[in-house]
Amino acid sequence: MTAFAGAPVVPPVLPSGLDTPTLVIDVDVVEANARRLAGALDARGVRLRPHVKTHKSVRLARLQLGAGAKGITVGNLGEAEVMAAGGIDDIFVAYPVWADGPKAGRLRALHDAVRRFAVGVDSIPGAERLAAAVAGTARPLRVLVEIDPGNGRTGVAPNRAADVALTARSLGLSIDGVFAFAGHAYRRREAIAGAASDEMATLAGAAAALRRAGLEAPVVSAGSTPTALLAAGGEVNEIRAGTYLLGDRQLLALGSVRPDGLAAWVAATVVSTSVPGQVVVDAGAKSLTKDQPDYLEGYGLVAAYPDAVIDRLFDYHGIVRLPHAAGPRLGEVVAILPNHACPVVDQFDSFVAIRKGEVVGTWPVDARGRSG
Amino acid sequence: MTAFAGAPVVPPVLPSGLDTPTLVIDVDVVEANARRLAGALDARGVRLRPHVKTHKSVRLARLQLGAGAKGITVGNLGEAEVMAAGGIDDIFVAYPVWADGPKAGRLRALHDAVRRFAVGVDSIPGAERLAAAVAGTARPLRVLVEIDPGNGRTGVAPNRAADVALTARSLGLSIDGVFAFAGHAYRRREAIAGAASDEMATLAGAAAALRRAGLEAPVVSAGSTPTALLAAGGEVNEIRAGTYLLGDRQLLALGSVRPDGLAAWVAATVVSTSVPGQVVVDAGAKSLTKDQPDYLEGYGLVAAYPDAVIDRLFDYHGIVRLPHAAGPRLGEVVAILPNHACPVVDQFDSFVAIRKGEVVGTWPVDARGRSG
Repeated sequence: MTAFAGAPVVPPVLPSGLDTPTLVIDVDVVEANARRLAGALDARGVRLRPHVKTHKSVRLARLQLGAGAKGITVGNLGEAEVMAAGGIDDIFVAYPVWADGPKAGRLRALHDAVRRFAVGVDSIPGAERLAAAVAGTARPLRVLVEIDPGNGRTGVAPNRAADVALTARSLGLSIDGVFAFAGHAYRRREAIAGAASDEMATLAGAAAALRRAGLEAPVVSAGSTPTALLAAGGEVNEIRAGTYLLGDRQLLALGSVRPDGLAAWVAATVVSTSVPGQVVVDAGAKSLTKDQPDYLEGYGLVAAYPDAVIDRLFDYHGIVRLPHAAGPRLGEVVAILPNHACPVVDQFDSFVAIRKGEVVGTWPVDARGRSG
Repeated sequence: MTAFAGAPVVPPVLPSGLDTPTLVIDVDVVEANARRLAGALDARGVRLRPHVKTHKSVRLARLQLGAGAKGITVGNLGEAEVMAAGGIDDIFVAYPVWADGPKAGRLRALHDAVRRFAVGVDSIPGAERLAAAVAGTARPLRVLVEIDPGNGRTGVAPNRAADVALTARSLGLSIDGVFAFAGHAYRRREAIAGAASDEMATLAGAAAALRRAGLEAPVVSAGSTPTALLAAGGEVNEIRAGTYLLGDRQLLALGSVRPDGLAAWVAATVVSTSVPGQVVVDAGAKSLTKDQPDYLEGYGLVAAYPDAVIDRLFDYHGIVRLPHAAGPRLGEVVAILPNHACPVVDQFDSFVAIRKGEVVGTWPVDARGRSG
């Protein structure tokens, strides 16, 4: 997994005439990434249900389904609505949806419209609202109980899973299984194997608890790109990785994406070289975001100048410190690898799709800004 | 200026039935903020040309103009295009626009369409491209030379201002004056007075250098909300503050906005309380952003629970640590004060505008995502 850790990052050949800052994706790389993970999971008999919050694009979701994914994962009802409108008919909302107020009607409409629709739940009051929202509809709403694998975010402890599931069933909901997200895998490379074990163990424990309570758990779903291949197997029969499709600098540092698997780049132009020791590019906090894990220096990688550090971000200015003299010239367009692809994609209305340095299309980020 | 530093922050009364996460603005507060700064600057004979990158809203820009602002400032051509399409006819792009490729045509179209249009420049090659882009148009393009007041971002040293200005004039550009942005005022409260002095001194030096070179500098423009009132006067005859209109947690900590001047809030719902010692809200990194100056703890302030810390952000989850037992209940809607209003507004397609807890409209963030 770390065999490629020292390999250099080669930026894509950018088409000329880009209007920067622009989000560029290399479609050849996207397709290879889509096939690679789907194939590896298929070989283990594990379903891939990719999380589309990374790209928020109907077209890319379809590309994943075409490459072997079985259904998709979304992070909220807004993404589900966009994907459903795009014709995708198997959607899991991996989130403890609180179906109150306007969300009750939106949930019900999705439940009515989508062939296979499921949502997460991690509390009895949450289950009560879900049940109330879909009361009187033709079929029961599918739910998966969220289990906390040690990430400390959402999800119940494995020994609470049966309580929530039994209550949910008594409210008329259909128990599809259990799911977990081992976000603690992202803390550092050395944490990944443990996080994957945590996912497998807590999900197995929760599934066993459901069975002891007389319930079934047909879906046992783990997530995250770093843990995807490590957690796939045993009781785990579904993987919800997302960022694997585009790659980013964080995954590269974690050893979870290959240097030739980096598909998403921000193209930026050097607009100022007035202050010595640095250049300024036109990608700032509203393009690159201030997402910065503590193991990465700066707010992205200027791949052609790997010693350069994107030190400070203003809204529309990125300050690139040059420890050595070599840096891009005024007016040069550079490709920046984002630290974290997901929030960066959400800054842009569209991708400029390229193959071998040529523009092949402008693809909308359909669910941009859909965060609830 | 710090008389209100200890005053508590009172969250707005939120209307019921909000579909969270949602960006809410209190229009009464916005109007009071708009009048207060415009009035204070008017009393000193200094023009206010607000930076609209904070709100990206034609309606709010018009509100500022109605309250006494003279023209607006934008951060890029995209914002200028949106504001021009909204009928605003006096626009300064406070950015060293690199007018190459698609931007050359866009710049030319704006120059043709907007009654009073000006852009920043901080290099001779930049001036050459500006001149080439508007070659053959009916009137010269107005430019302001950017001066670095010690922020170390963009802008030339004061003693270089005349070189750039003389070259720009020889290229057929019209020299409108000089401008500076003292971003170093945001580093800490104690830095503000010095940053304001830096702005005034460097701008005065640059204006004097232009005069010695036989040029005029009718506009001497300083910026930033923290330094606005401190820098207004002497040679400085224009202020480009932006965030003053909405306020945010950073400005509050700097003593640059009053607790009753906080107009922009993210409404979020508690969706999970499964992990002890914390609650989880549905505002994550794609709503609150990871903007966090080192003098603020957490990614925003849950005003009704001031001891709570928004400790970790995932895309759609905000983890709110509760050092004491008291915290919001499952399903409760809370108002979160963002650390930095500008990038947060840019996550949302619209504002929910309220007055006294009642919704009075949904106002588009017209220039959302326009970053270049």
